[in-house]
Amino acid sequence: MNFLEERIIKDGIVKPGNVLKVDSFLNHQIDIDLLDLMGKEFHKRFSEEKVTKILTIEASGIGIACMTARHFRVPVVFAKKSQTVVQDDDKYVSDVTSYTHKVTNHVFVSKKYINPDDRILIIDDFMAHGQASLGLIDIVKQAGGVVVGIGIAIEKGFQQGGQLLRDKGYKLESLAIVESMDSETGRIEFRKQ
Amino acid sequence: MNFLEERIIKDGIVKPGNVLKVDSFLNHQIDIDLLDLMGKEFHKRFSEEKVTKILTIEASGIGIACMTARHFRVPVVFAKKSQTVVQDDDKYVSDVTSYTHKVTNHVFVSKKYINPDDRILIIDDFMAHGQASLGLIDIVKQAGGVVVGIGIAIEKGFQQGGQLLRDKGYKLESLAIVESMDSETGRIEFRKQ
Repeated sequence: MNFLEERIIKDGIVKPGNVLKVDSFLNHQIDIDLLDLMGKEFHKRFSEEKVTKILTIEASGIGIACMTARHFRVPVVFAKKSQTVVQDDDKYVSDVTSYTHKVTNHVFVSKKYINPDDRILIIDDFMAHGQASLGLIDIVKQAGGVVVGIGIAIEKGFQQGGQLLRDKGYKLESLAIVESMDSETGRIEFRKQ
Repeated sequence: MNFLEERIIKDGIVKPGNVLKVDSFLNHQIDIDLLDLMGKEFHKRFSEEKVTKILTIEASGIGIACMTARHFRVPVVFAKKSQTVVQDDDKYVSDVTSYTHKVTNHVFVSKKYINPDDRILIIDDFMAHGQASLGLIDIVKQAGGVVVGIGIAIEKGFQQGGQLLRDKGYKLESLAIVESMDSETGRIEFRKQ
């Protein structure tokens, strides 16, 4: 097991409905040393990709993206969420449906901050159905940039987002892939990587 | 002028209605080297305060809080916003009215992540009327913790939040205090510190 898998076993809590709570170290309270290790690991895995910018989505992706950007020495751009924003001359907009929260948000990025020569690394805390990454990929495509990789902290391997994105040819690296979890026993199994 | 004031002069854009846009380096696209300098400076100013935790509010405070926490080697907790959440056994809730967006959000923190022995440094990107900081202070008080300082990137010195919090006795340090700005000429004046 790697450092993140070990931490999930130690502090993650499995709730009914395939919910994995990691808010003691990842997305409410944040362990900065852990994020720094994650950033280092993402840098190792994507160091050949000539990344020019890291793209994430508010709110819980921002910390990981910043601590990763430090190792790449590139800027972070975070997409904003809104239920009301419309596409206009200033921004690229895409739709992201959250299966967890049962809402569709528009996500948007100001056109100034993604350019055709950008080589984008997408970073996020979770991947389940892959909707957030697909929305961010759509935005990068609208801007004419290239997505050179997707770095995820925790992938739910039993949902189809990861498979879908790998099938599309994206270099997707998840630090922990949960194969199964059981809210009654608390047991979590990871995919061997 | 310090490094942040210089950057605001170079890349900040003054809009009508006392709006200062800094989304090219602070709250949409993020310059990580700049945030690291800000974190170092906050650490210098609050190094005597025995900070145990950094508290901020989603979304644009998270990056600065993480890059500051790295220098203190303490965890970050970010308060979440919701228009619907209610106080319950699990969370502390407070209200924050945004003058910019003309809405009142509830902000909340899980009770697990602030304790009576915590010495909290509040970090945020902007201070205008001080509503966000007052909401976070309220949450820390509910938890029985102590707010040992408030670190703000950009304070709008012509609005009353900074004065209000200093009058209440809080150690508030703002890296840049805008005294006045003019959307017609683009001129920005900082308070001498």
